[in-house]
Parts: sequence; C-alpha cells; structure tokens
Amino acid sequence: MIPALSVPPPIEETAPNTRCRILATAERFFREIGYQKTTVADIAKTLRMSPANVYRFFDSKKAINEAVVERLIGEVEAKIAAIAGRPGDSAEIRLREVIALLHRDAAGRFTAHPRMHEMIEAAMSESWNVCRHHVDRITAVLERVIADGVDRGEFAVPDAAVAARCVHTAILRFCHPVLVVQCPEDFVPALDAMIEFLLGALRAQRQAC
Amino acid sequence: MIPALSVPPPIEETAPNTRCRILATAERFFREIGYQKTTVADIAKTLRMSPANVYRFFDSKKAINEAVVERLIGEVEAKIAAIAGRPGDSAEIRLREVIALLHRDAAGRFTAHPRMHEMIEAAMSESWNVCRHHVDRITAVLERVIADGVDRGEFAVPDAAVAARCVHTAILRFCHPVLVVQCPEDFVPALDAMIEFLLGALRAQRQAC
Repeated sequence: MIPALSVPPPIEETAPNTRCRILATAERFFREIGYQKTTVADIAKTLRMSPANVYRFFDSKKAINEAVVERLIGEVEAKIAAIAGRPGDSAEIRLREVIALLHRDAAGRFTAHPRMHEMIEAAMSESWNVCRHHVDRITAVLERVIADGVDRGEFAVPDAAVAARCVHTAILRFCHPVLVVQCPEDFVPALDAMIEFLLGALRAQRQAC
Repeated sequence: MIPALSVPPPIEETAPNTRCRILATAERFFREIGYQKTTVADIAKTLRMSPANVYRFFDSKKAINEAVVERLIGEVEAKIAAIAGRPGDSAEIRLREVIALLHRDAAGRFTAHPRMHEMIEAAMSESWNVCRHHVDRITAVLERVIADGVDRGEFAVPDAAVAARCVHTAILRFCHPVLVVQCPEDFVPALDAMIEFLLGALRAQRQAC
C-alpha cells in the first residue's frame, strides 16, 4: 500500500482546477436556477466539498459572480479582438462583423437562458467596475478598427475614441443583456439598418467636399 | 332642506374626476412605495372609496398602471411635439432640443424617484403595447423633424423613417428608464458628443461630392 503522503493530489484537486470547477458549477446554477436562489452551499454540495473550501477561493457569492461574468465576457472580447486584428479586411467589414458578433452573442446567450439576466443584474448593481471594464475593452476594440479605417481613408472622424463610444452606445439595444431580451425581434430598426446608419456617421467627413 | 336628489353631485365626484384622482393617487403610490407593494385597496382607502368603486373605472392594477404610464408619456410626447412644430428653427436645432428634452425628462423623473422603475418594468413586461406605441410616437416626431431637414437640404438620408428609428435606438442609453438610472453620469459619451455623431450620420449624404 502506498503511504498517503506520497500520493500526489489527484489532478482535479489542484488549486487552479478547483477554481475552474467552482466557476463552471456556479455558472450552471446561475443559468438554470438564477443568481438569487443559488447559495454557496449548493455549489459546494454539487462539487462534494465543504462551503469553507469554496470560500478558500472566493470571498463571497458576489466574488464568484464577478469571476463567472469575467470569464463569459472574456470569451466575447477574445472573439471581437480576433476580428479586429484581421488586416486583410477593410475596417468597414471588420466593424460590421464585430457588431454582428456582439449582437449574436448577447441574443443567443440571454434569450436561451433568461435566468442569466439575474447574474448580470447583480453584476451591474454590485460590481459595476466589472461591467465598466468590459465596456472599456469593447470600445477599445471598436476604436482600433475605427482608427484603422481613418488611416486607410475609409472613415473620417475627428476622434476615434469618441466615435467608438458613440457606436457602442448606439448599439446597446442589440447587445445589452436586458434590452436584447426585452425588445421583440420585430422591433425596428433591424441591426443591418443600424449598422448602415452608423457607417454613414463614420464616413461623414470623408465625403465632405 | 333641499331634497337629496336635487343636489348635483359634488364636483370631485364626477366620473372623469374620480378617474383622475385614482390615477394621481396611484402614481404617488407607485412613485413612493413602488408598483409591487401598492394594492388597489391602498389606493381606494386613500381616496376614501371602496375597492369596488376603483374597479368600476379600472379592471385591474395593470390597467391603472397603463393609464398612469400613458399620462406620463403623454406629457413628454406633447413637449417634444411642440419643439418639432417650430418651423422658425432649423431641423438641427429642433432635433438637438427634442433629444435633450427626452434625456432631461427621463433622467429627472427616474433618478429622483427610483421606485418608478418598478411601474415601468411592469409596463414593459405586462403592457408592451403601451411602450411600443410610445416609441412609435417618439419616432414619428423624430421622423417629422428629419424629413423636414431633408426638405430644407440640411439632412440627406434615403429614408427619414428608418433614420428616425436609428436615432431613437442610438439614444436609448440617455432616455430608457432603466439605462438612464443605471449608467453613471460620467459614463461616456456625453449626450452632446452623441448628438454630434448622429447629426454626422444625418448629414452624411448631403456632404457627398
């Protein structure tokens, strides 16, 4: 018999892995029964660990939610950054794709799992900085594409950073977790019409005589 | 002694007036203690009438809320229609003022009375048509100003109705009851920057060589 001390911890018990398992389980709970009804005890029980062990990794349910939300938004941020970084495509094509992806991601995620709404609402009221940093990173991607479009002569705006903020604010109805679920599908304008309108604003000064 | 039958009903007991008093009282309750906690019995008690009498005018709390919301939004609709109907001002000036008023009205109303949020949420989930008609009437005002701007050569958009929908969607963050309270004041862009950006889109084709 191998003495207990010489046995390395099973692979699933390493700290980073435990952290991941806690987040994956929490996310499932938040998605399926909602943030409000989920307790740290539920998460611990499902993982067959003590609540105290969960608290070794996260101070509170709020801290778990912040990590879950950061992981989710990290995924969409990585996808739009990849689109923005394709120098072969025009800025216009990349901007269209970034906006379409933001919409598709939000619509798919929040329509399929209406209870996710609760964890997002909790993040917006308790962890506003997480949301603000997300907005900052999205607008940074939009700004990169717009500034590139200005360099290429596709767009002409006096300040790419301000234009990026305006574009992101203008598309809130298509990517805000609450609005994307609240607005019926037939609620005009369609995303395509909105993108055309915004492209008009970005091109505006280029076309000036 | 005057026989009871010959006495006209006191002025405050005429039907339209009773309806108004119910709405005014309901609005105060919704604003101060919130839609969820308000009961028809509370409203009736404050007015010293029976709940049955309230139900003679309104089928349900939902119906009361719809009437309260319609009255509130009727006020702001009348104000923006008055601005839109000033032919002496350029379309640009009128558009700026309409948008600024929509923002000021929403920010003032919902920031001062955070509990009004509940009645609006209830209207959005239970009485979507009331909200949709409101949006339709606001975009109709925006469309009138934009179409007038096109006639005057100030703007050049292929379809004023689509442009109006886009402008209204783009300013949601500044006039949606939930977003206007949720977004901190320093959350950029400022309304002025947003208006400039949207005016760029409206002027876009006018400036084309």
